[in-house]
Amino acid sequence: MRFKYVLLAIVMVCTSCWGQELKSRSAPTNVPGSEFPRLNSDLSATFRVQAEQAQKVQLLMELGQSTYDMAKSTDGFWEVTTKPLLPGFHYYLISADGFDATDPGSRTFFAARREVSGIEVPAPESEFFAIKDVPHGAIRIESYFSKATGGWRRIFVYTPPGYDQGSERYPVLYLQHGWGEDEAAWSHQGRENFILDNLIAAHKAKPMIIVNENGMTGINFQPPPPPRPGSTPNPPSPRSMNSIKEERYTLFDSVISSDLVPFIDSHFRTIPDREHRALAGLSMGGGQAIRIGLNHLDQFAYLGAFSPALFISDTAKDYDGILADPAKANGQLRLWWIGVGSDDFLLKPVTGSHEALEKAGIKHVWVESSGGHVWTVWRKYLADFVPRLFQ
Amino acid sequence: MRFKYVLLAIVMVCTSCWGQELKSRSAPTNVPGSEFPRLNSDLSATFRVQAEQAQKVQLLMELGQSTYDMAKSTDGFWEVTTKPLLPGFHYYLISADGFDATDPGSRTFFAARREVSGIEVPAPESEFFAIKDVPHGAIRIESYFSKATGGWRRIFVYTPPGYDQGSERYPVLYLQHGWGEDEAAWSHQGRENFILDNLIAAHKAKPMIIVNENGMTGINFQPPPPPRPGSTPNPPSPRSMNSIKEERYTLFDSVISSDLVPFIDSHFRTIPDREHRALAGLSMGGGQAIRIGLNHLDQFAYLGAFSPALFISDTAKDYDGILADPAKANGQLRLWWIGVGSDDFLLKPVTGSHEALEKAGIKHVWVESSGGHVWTVWRKYLADFVPRLFQ
Repeated sequence: MRFKYVLLAIVMVCTSCWGQELKSRSAPTNVPGSEFPRLNSDLSATFRVQAEQAQKVQLLMELGQSTYDMAKSTDGFWEVTTKPLLPGFHYYLISADGFDATDPGSRTFFAARREVSGIEVPAPESEFFAIKDVPHGAIRIESYFSKATGGWRRIFVYTPPGYDQGSERYPVLYLQHGWGEDEAAWSHQGRENFILDNLIAAHKAKPMIIVNENGMTGINFQPPPPPRPGSTPNPPSPRSMNSIKEERYTLFDSVISSDLVPFIDSHFRTIPDREHRALAGLSMGGGQAIRIGLNHLDQFAYLGAFSPALFISDTAKDYDGILADPAKANGQLRLWWIGVGSDDFLLKPVTGSHEALEKAGIKHVWVESSGGHVWTVWRKYLADFVPRLFQ
Repeated sequence: MRFKYVLLAIVMVCTSCWGQELKSRSAPTNVPGSEFPRLNSDLSATFRVQAEQAQKVQLLMELGQSTYDMAKSTDGFWEVTTKPLLPGFHYYLISADGFDATDPGSRTFFAARREVSGIEVPAPESEFFAIKDVPHGAIRIESYFSKATGGWRRIFVYTPPGYDQGSERYPVLYLQHGWGEDEAAWSHQGRENFILDNLIAAHKAKPMIIVNENGMTGINFQPPPPPRPGSTPNPPSPRSMNSIKEERYTLFDSVISSDLVPFIDSHFRTIPDREHRALAGLSMGGGQAIRIGLNHLDQFAYLGAFSPALFISDTAKDYDGILADPAKANGQLRLWWIGVGSDDFLLKPVTGSHEALEKAGIKHVWVESSGGHVWTVWRKYLADFVPRLFQ
C-alpha cells in the first residue's frame, strides 16, 4: 500500500518534470542564462521584457511582418506568447512606445542595416546545421585591401576540416548575403560552417573554401529607416538587368573580380581556375551572383541564385545579350542553380526567370521549395547546392 | 572685382565644408550609413533615436554610470549631446520608458551578459589599434569539444601574419575577457588582432598565437539584471583567493588546462611548452589568469593580470601557499605583469596585491596607469604586455 503511493509519487514527479521539459525551454539564440524568450511545445514562443514606464510594448516578428501587442504584468515586465512559429530562424524587434530595439534576452544579428534580435525555433529538420561530433572547419575573419574601394575590407572565410593539417588545394565558393546584412551573415544566421562540416563528413559535398564579402557596396542606398510595426524593411526593387554595366553593381563587381578573387588565390590553397570557383548568394546576393557571374564566366563556372532579386525576362537582350547563344552559355556554365520559396514575394519574377531560361534552352537546376524569403529556406538551399559543386 | 567675389565664395564654401568636417562626424562604431551617434570636435557625442510615443528617453553611458536625459524634438526623435567623452571605447544603452535597449545606429557588443551598444571615440593615441598597411593576421572562430563541460565550445584564435604561408611554430598567449563578456570580446572590443599586427610589423612583439575562451564558465552567476539608470552591472565581488581549489573556478581551470591547451597544441603550430605559453586576462579574466596560472606553472611561465578581480594579501597563505617560496616562484615565472588604472574601483585591492608581492620579494612588473575599469585601458595594457613575452 505504502509502496503504491511512493510509486504514484514518483510517476507524478516524473510526469511533471517531463511535462515541464516539454512545455517550454529557453531558445538556443538566447544570451547565456536568459530565461526568455521561451519556446513552447506547440512551437509558439513566449517573449518577456522589462519596460516599467511604457504605455505600449509590441513584438515585431520578422521585423514587423507580424506584430503582437505585449501585455503588462504588475512587476514592470511585458509578455506575449505568439502563435506557433515556423521551425527555423526568425528576425524580430521589440517596440516600446515607438522605440524599436533589440531584446536583451537574445543575441543580435545584422539585418536591415542594423542589429536586430533573432530566435531559432529548432525542429528535427534542423539537424543538418547542428554542431555534431564530426571534424570541424573554421571561420576566419580576414582583412584585405581593395583597390576598387580604396579601403580595407573584412571578409569571412570558411576553411574545411583538415585545411591546416594538409597541403591539399581546394575549390572556392563565393557566397553572398542579402540586402541590409553583412559578411558575417552566412556563418552567423546561415550556419554555413556546420552545414558544410556535416555534408563533408557524410561525403555529400567536396571539401571547399567558402568566402563571404560585404555586398552592401556601391549600392546607392538611403539611411536605414527604422522598421515600424506593420511594415517591413524594403529590399531593393526586383528588376531585370538589361545591362551588365548598370552602375550600382559595377563597384562590387570590381571588388569581387579584381580584388577579392586574387587575394583569396594568393592567401589560401585554392585551385585557381573557373572550373573550381562558384558564385552564389541569396536575394540581393543572388542578383549579384547572376550579374557578376555572367560578367565573369572566365572566373566562375558555377552559379547559385537563392531567391534572387534580379531577373531574366528575355535571354536574348538581358545582361547585354550574354545569354543570347544558349549553346555557348551551356558550355560555359557547369551549374546554374535557381530556387525560390512558394511563399516568397519574389516567387513570380524568379519563376519567370526560370521560364525564360527554359524557353531559351539554357540548362539550370530549378527548385521551387516551400517557405518564404527567410534564412530557414536559404540554409536548405545551401545544403542542396553545395553537393552539386565541383563534381 | 568679380574674381575677388569668386575667390571669397570658394573660401567661404571650403571653410564651411571644413568647419562641418571638424564639427561632427559619424562614430566609427556606427552601423554603415547611420548618421548618429555623431562625434563633435570637443569629443562630446550627440545621440539621436526615434521613440515617438515615449515619455522619457535616457542615454545610459557606461551602462548607467552616467545618465543623460534625452530631449524630444517634434518629429518623434530624441536627442542629447554628452559632455566631452574620454577617447576610447564606451559601452552604452538607450532607455525608453524603462526599456533598456541598444541604439539602432550603433554596432552591438557582448557585455554585462547581454548585447549592448558601443561607441568608439578616436584620438591620436588610437593609432596603435588602427588597421594599417601592414601584414595582417586573422581571427579564426574554431569549435572544439570539452570533456570538462561535456559540450562543444567556441573559441577565437588570432594567428599572426604569415601563419598560413610558413611552417614556423609559435608561442601562445591565452587571453581572457571580463565578467559578462565572451570569447569575441578581445577581438571585437579589444582589437587584439590589429594591436598585434602593428606591434609585430614594428618588431616590437614576437609573432604569436592568441587564444580567447569563454570565461563565464562554472561561475555560479544569477540571471542578468537589466542595467538600470544610475546603476552598473555588478562584477563579482573582488576577493583574495585562499584556496586554488575554490569551486567556482575549478571547472574553467579544467577547460583551460585539460581541454583547451591540448586542443590548441594539436591543431596549431605551437611551441608546446611552458616557456612559450602565457596566460592573461582583464578583470574577472585577470583573476582567472592568476588563479589558473599559479595552479599550472607547469603549463604557463608568463602571467598577465589587467585590473584583476582576484587579490593577494598574504603570499604565504593565499593560493594554498604556492607563493610561499619566493625564490621558487621567481624561478618559475618568467613574467608576472599586474596593472590597474588610477580611476579603477579595484585600484586599492590590486595595489594591495602588488605590495604583498613586493614585500615577499616576488618579481613582477607593476603598472599603475591612468583610466578606469574600461577597454580603453586594457587595449593599452595588451600593447604593454605582449612586447615582454617570449623574449
